[in-house]
Amino acid sequence: MSLELVSSAKCFEGEQRVYKHRSNTLNCDMNFGVFLPAAAIEDKTACPVVFFLSGLTCTHENFIQKSGFQQHAAKHGLIVVNPDTSPRGVELSGQDDAYDFGSGAGFYVDAKQEPWSKHYHMYSYVTQELVDIVNANFPAVPGKRGIFGHSMGGHGALICALKNPGLYQSVSAFAPIANPSECPWGKKALAGYISSNESDWAQWDATRLVAEYASTPQELFIDQGLADNFLTAKQLLPENLLAAADSNEHVQTIYKQREGYDHGYFYISTFVGEHIAYHAKLLTA
Amino acid sequence: MSLELVSSAKCFEGEQRVYKHRSNTLNCDMNFGVFLPAAAIEDKTACPVVFFLSGLTCTHENFIQKSGFQQHAAKHGLIVVNPDTSPRGVELSGQDDAYDFGSGAGFYVDAKQEPWSKHYHMYSYVTQELVDIVNANFPAVPGKRGIFGHSMGGHGALICALKNPGLYQSVSAFAPIANPSECPWGKKALAGYISSNESDWAQWDATRLVAEYASTPQELFIDQGLADNFLTAKQLLPENLLAAADSNEHVQTIYKQREGYDHGYFYISTFVGEHIAYHAKLLTA
Repeated sequence: MSLELVSSAKCFEGEQRVYKHRSNTLNCDMNFGVFLPAAAIEDKTACPVVFFLSGLTCTHENFIQKSGFQQHAAKHGLIVVNPDTSPRGVELSGQDDAYDFGSGAGFYVDAKQEPWSKHYHMYSYVTQELVDIVNANFPAVPGKRGIFGHSMGGHGALICALKNPGLYQSVSAFAPIANPSECPWGKKALAGYISSNESDWAQWDATRLVAEYASTPQELFIDQGLADNFLTAKQLLPENLLAAADSNEHVQTIYKQREGYDHGYFYISTFVGEHIAYHAKLLTA
Repeated sequence: MSLELVSSAKCFEGEQRVYKHRSNTLNCDMNFGVFLPAAAIEDKTACPVVFFLSGLTCTHENFIQKSGFQQHAAKHGLIVVNPDTSPRGVELSGQDDAYDFGSGAGFYVDAKQEPWSKHYHMYSYVTQELVDIVNANFPAVPGKRGIFGHSMGGHGALICALKNPGLYQSVSAFAPIANPSECPWGKKALAGYISSNESDWAQWDATRLVAEYASTPQELFIDQGLADNFLTAKQLLPENLLAAADSNEHVQTIYKQREGYDHGYFYISTFVGEHIAYHAKLLTA
């Protein structure tokens, strides 16, 4: 579990770092980003940790470089950790054939089918190994943990939270793939990683998980740009998740629709401050 | 002077756009970025314009994607325009041989030597053609214009202002190459673009221009990270410019040193809000 520091730069009085480590869950080397606010560095003040999961084609770099989240994490005293989107440096036939499956498209599931099941366990990596690494290496407040993400990573944030009641105290998503069983991206991913039997997909689909959720009440903050081409193309389907939540008293939703905003990082950068403030409010209450 | 819209995305209620156009000054097609605050779009309210010049290896994209400036331009109601760093799509022998000369490294001068003098007129492009294009196509307040930049672009901002008293009402620079005649990057560029005779370099060197400046009083806001490797390597030499300004009553400087910050975009993103507030104060007074 040793970490190699790849880069570090001072940013809003804190530090944006990138670490490399050997993942036992994924059987490969992985990079992830960590923003540490000043207090977490100077006197190792324990801070809540928020995990951000990125979308298709991204590495750990996109969110670090394009979202401008650091100023908000610095202001609220949050540690923010963001992993890569798939195993890297492995040799699997077909992994680089498409932008929406394989490298850069791990979909935050634990693959059940060969050859993906050798490495593609992003769900366990995010919810277990990375949590342990963060707790062991950074001054994290025990039990104060949030998760959010974008698009494929919004799907990831939702399923990680819904499958592990109590693990995360705050959950939000930008333009999530909210019902993957019913959209082209999700059907391809779940058929490839999980099973040809669609009934096996339910445990990896946020809308189906919401419908069945019966644990501690969970609030989900869903954000959606209304000029998002993937919304129009029915890849995201937030309406299905919202309908499922409406029928389940254990799940509350906050749904913010942003007129004129698309699917990209200019949209995320505009609202990431609001999301981080939301996480901070729940994690520092 | 027709502009082709390459991309547009809503961002902080305004729009981040990229345009392509044929430059008569550079004899090639060029891209540039424009951020328009909401008021400039909705009712074409005239706004001050600030130009940002980027550093070595950059295109127009780096500043747009990595600095997070848009939130500040939106807040202060400024239009921000950022050009590319050299002519593009031209065929000149040797233009891609090095990161610090040729493509991506136009140094904001008007080249005098072949083959560069066919295209490399970034100084005239920035101070004349681009100003005219902006005035003709966007709701710019006449006579309220600022300029800033980073590294090579900080040098560019300083010489554009010092050579054109009154053209810009606000000037700032992040980690500028402040005395190019005396540093490796600058010597290579000026010898290649301008002349083998060093006396011809003075008009392209901010420190020498400051020493000779005798026009309307000019304030220069210089920003410098103290963990900047290029400062240590004597590529930047802000101390020489500050000394020249100390001896010239027509030039005032504000010099801010940032403990622990390096030369990169995490440094810029941390302080770009302060720079834009500085420009806004001078341009909206």
